[in-house]
Amino acid sequence: MSQQQRTSAWVAEWVGGRLVGPGDVVVTDVGGLDDAGSGAVSFLGNPRYRDRVLPSKAAVVLVPEGFTEAPPAGRAWVVCADPSAAFTKVVTAFAPPPPTYAAGVHERAVVSPSATVAASAHVGPCAVVEAGAVIGERTVIGAGCYVGHEARVGDDCFLYPHVIGADGFGYDSGPTGHTKIPQVGIVQIDDDVEIGALAAVDRARFGRTWIQRGTKIDNLVQVAHNVVIGPHCIVVSQAGIAGSTHLGQGVILAAQAGLVGHIHIGDGAVVMAQAGVTKDVPPKGAVFGSPAVDRQDYAREQMMIKRIPRLVQSLKDLEARVRELQQRLEDEG
Amino acid sequence: MSQQQRTSAWVAEWVGGRLVGPGDVVVTDVGGLDDAGSGAVSFLGNPRYRDRVLPSKAAVVLVPEGFTEAPPAGRAWVVCADPSAAFTKVVTAFAPPPPTYAAGVHERAVVSPSATVAASAHVGPCAVVEAGAVIGERTVIGAGCYVGHEARVGDDCFLYPHVIGADGFGYDSGPTGHTKIPQVGIVQIDDDVEIGALAAVDRARFGRTWIQRGTKIDNLVQVAHNVVIGPHCIVVSQAGIAGSTHLGQGVILAAQAGLVGHIHIGDGAVVMAQAGVTKDVPPKGAVFGSPAVDRQDYAREQMMIKRIPRLVQSLKDLEARVRELQQRLEDEG
Amino acid sequence: MSQQQRTSAWVAEWVGGRLVGPGDVVVTDVGGLDDAGSGAVSFLGNPRYRDRVLPSKAAVVLVPEGFTEAPPAGRAWVVCADPSAAFTKVVTAFAPPPPTYAAGVHERAVVSPSATVAASAHVGPCAVVEAGAVIGERTVIGAGCYVGHEARVGDDCFLYPHVIGADGFGYDSGPTGHTKIPQVGIVQIDDDVEIGALAAVDRARFGRTWIQRGTKIDNLVQVAHNVVIGPHCIVVSQAGIAGSTHLGQGVILAAQAGLVGHIHIGDGAVVMAQAGVTKDVPPKGAVFGSPAVDRQDYAREQMMIKRIPRLVQSLKDLEARVRELQQRLEDEG
Repeated sequence: MSQQQRTSAWVAEWVGGRLVGPGDVVVTDVGGLDDAGSGAVSFLGNPRYRDRVLPSKAAVVLVPEGFTEAPPAGRAWVVCADPSAAFTKVVTAFAPPPPTYAAGVHERAVVSPSATVAASAHVGPCAVVEAGAVIGERTVIGAGCYVGHEARVGDDCFLYPHVIGADGFGYDSGPTGHTKIPQVGIVQIDDDVEIGALAAVDRARFGRTWIQRGTKIDNLVQVAHNVVIGPHCIVVSQAGIAGSTHLGQGVILAAQAGLVGHIHIGDGAVVMAQAGVTKDVPPKGAVFGSPAVDRQDYAREQMMIKRIPRLVQSLKDLEARVRELQQRLEDEG
Repeated sequence: MSQQQRTSAWVAEWVGGRLVGPGDVVVTDVGGLDDAGSGAVSFLGNPRYRDRVLPSKAAVVLVPEGFTEAPPAGRAWVVCADPSAAFTKVVTAFAPPPPTYAAGVHERAVVSPSATVAASAHVGPCAVVEAGAVIGERTVIGAGCYVGHEARVGDDCFLYPHVIGADGFGYDSGPTGHTKIPQVGIVQIDDDVEIGALAAVDRARFGRTWIQRGTKIDNLVQVAHNVVIGPHCIVVSQAGIAGSTHLGQGVILAAQAGLVGHIHIGDGAVVMAQAGVTKDVPPKGAVFGSPAVDRQDYAREQMMIKRIPRLVQSLKDLEARVRELQQRLEDEG
Repeated sequence: MSQQQRTSAWVAEWVGGRLVGPGDVVVTDVGGLDDAGSGAVSFLGNPRYRDRVLPSKAAVVLVPEGFTEAPPAGRAWVVCADPSAAFTKVVTAFAPPPPTYAAGVHERAVVSPSATVAASAHVGPCAVVEAGAVIGERTVIGAGCYVGHEARVGDDCFLYPHVIGADGFGYDSGPTGHTKIPQVGIVQIDDDVEIGALAAVDRARFGRTWIQRGTKIDNLVQVAHNVVIGPHCIVVSQAGIAGSTHLGQGVILAAQAGLVGHIHIGDGAVVMAQAGVTKDVPPKGAVFGSPAVDRQDYAREQMMIKRIPRLVQSLKDLEARVRELQQRLEDEG
């Protein structure tokens, strides 16, 4: 089926949804509700944007169950369980193919003769792979990435430009200055990991800095020496993890969060944005603030601060009543 | 006029200021008030440094209107409306010419055959420009920059080393792990934009991540997928903007500020340093703290906290008075 | 002595410690207390891990004076003044030699003909050294580093990949947009400095951005134009320093701290993690919070907030007593 013939009926079939309205509305591209043109497929991904569906120019809108407004003339809805996922499927049908990364080492990459790069891996231009490093099958080492000495990268990983396996930041500090502690460990990145642009992963003081299977790391993140990140974690942009801290399975660190060293974050825990975590977080815990406390404690504390003006007023009222009582006693006395 | 002959009279003429003191004081270089040598031109840019003018060794000092101290023997002042801007003019006269970036692609850059680079643009060594990307007239792509697939960079832009158009950070998370949401949009950078070193600008999930005309972005900033930054904004170092957030015109994000996704920051709003913004900010709003609140609310809250010790004392005083009243009633009873 | 023959007696001699237990326990590698194998040397570096020594499989543990538990059969302790430093010494004996950086410019580096690189310096692959820059003896410029125009790097420095000497972020803002202030100063890095990966050091507006002898800077740090960092400072990951701020000698900036411009941090001061410093810090000061206050003030403020619930209760109690007094007066009246 060529792209010219795509219609609202095709959309419903493609995403496995239920068509509401005519099946012959022609669609030619995709767009957000606000900027969609009159041939676009769009979607209602977040209930708070519900009021934007009718004013949108989008020809076809993917909507969730429970969206009951009828489409105006010439437009159609497709009801689906997860409009955001369905939209991703539609985008894929319209989009140009995403960039592919052919197997092989770019002629402008610099790979040490003692490094081991799988035949199916891609090493981009100006990337540097140092001595003894190992790159797994189908892994992409982006343009300009630096993979340090003896680093280990698993299969199916994706390193965006400029990931690093530099030395950990460790010094013995004395009266004559800071003496470097040798950082002789490695970095190990297991299978199916993605690491954002300009993220820094330091090699271990000894042993390994270890990012486990399926974990996704965003841009500009700092992972210090000897950190262990368990499987399937999410570490959002500009978060930082200090040395020897361990994350369990499925942990989420939101943007700009910071963790001190030598603590443990339990499985499934969530660290909110900009939190500063100074001690262990239990499994499924959620912490907020700097220094970080349990989400509920944080909310209570914030509420307390908001009560101060009322406290001041109550105290003034009470002072007036006491003054009055004193006066009465004076008068009576 | 050669540099050897420059004098206080020349300075006054060059900056269009009013000379106070002799016109024949020879000047040979520039410097800050504290470190200027005896042949230097310096400036009083900030009233809080007023007391540093007389002790300075600077031969000539650019001062604002209202600076009434007379220069000591052998030195001179030049009074001008904006001493900082005037100093910039003097610096330019003494400085070696700033680096220039000749038109053309460096032989050590890697540019895809399907990319379009304007003839007057500069692409530095080890920069990588991927397939389908477009680079506008007179734009400078710094050494080692990475410009991703299908990215669009306008005219007169300046990308310092290591700007990025990597994929957005978007995953569908389920019981079997995180599945990547295809990021098939582009990055569009309009004319006269500057982007600092080690800043990351992610490509869009669909559509575009868009930085509009005249905006300036500092080092180590994160701009996530589908963010729109309006014209003439300032984004200071280490700030981060999460996905799909929109900035209006002339917005200022101070250093290390963080914005959650899907919010709107109104025209002319200011986000203070380290603020964590979780909801819309109105035009000309100013927010502070994490989570961020209106600057006035924040100040009030901080004042409230400072009142607690006095509250505690007032309460104690009142308790004593009530105790006394009770005692009196007991005695009378 | 070959590695196969190393024993607990060798460890004691190597680190200059006192052996407790048998001298013939064979050791073959090193490890942390929790993950050490049965041939490993480990160490008790932090008293909070004291309970992990006995359960550890480590053959030999370096312990501090005052650790009085006896080693079980087949294991030994080595008592030493500083177990962490001693462990570093042991690690060095077992580790493969750390990466070395041969003198010379890599054939894939790009060095301007007008730059001056000491013969004993190393310039890695894809590094770029611009016109007029000077690189000192034995200094390592890591792969992909960018050293900007006229930058000065001293002897024995180590720049991890992607350090920068880009322009400072300075604009004159007016009704027609932001006009760039020329940044014609340089970056000067004195001897024995280390700078982490993906750190940005901006060139000065005029004069120099100056990092003095022996200072260590971690990954992803921002150092703005005209900043001066005194000797032997420590700047931890993701911290940022705004323009013209000066750090004295031996200052410590913890991770994600931020400093506004034009302030002075006194000798030996400590800025805690995520602090936002808005004014001068005295010598040996310690500040915390955002905006940052003296550590003691911060603790007092936090304690105050925690007192609010008790305040509320006291006030309620007092209100009840006053009500009772009023009632009594009514009854008596």
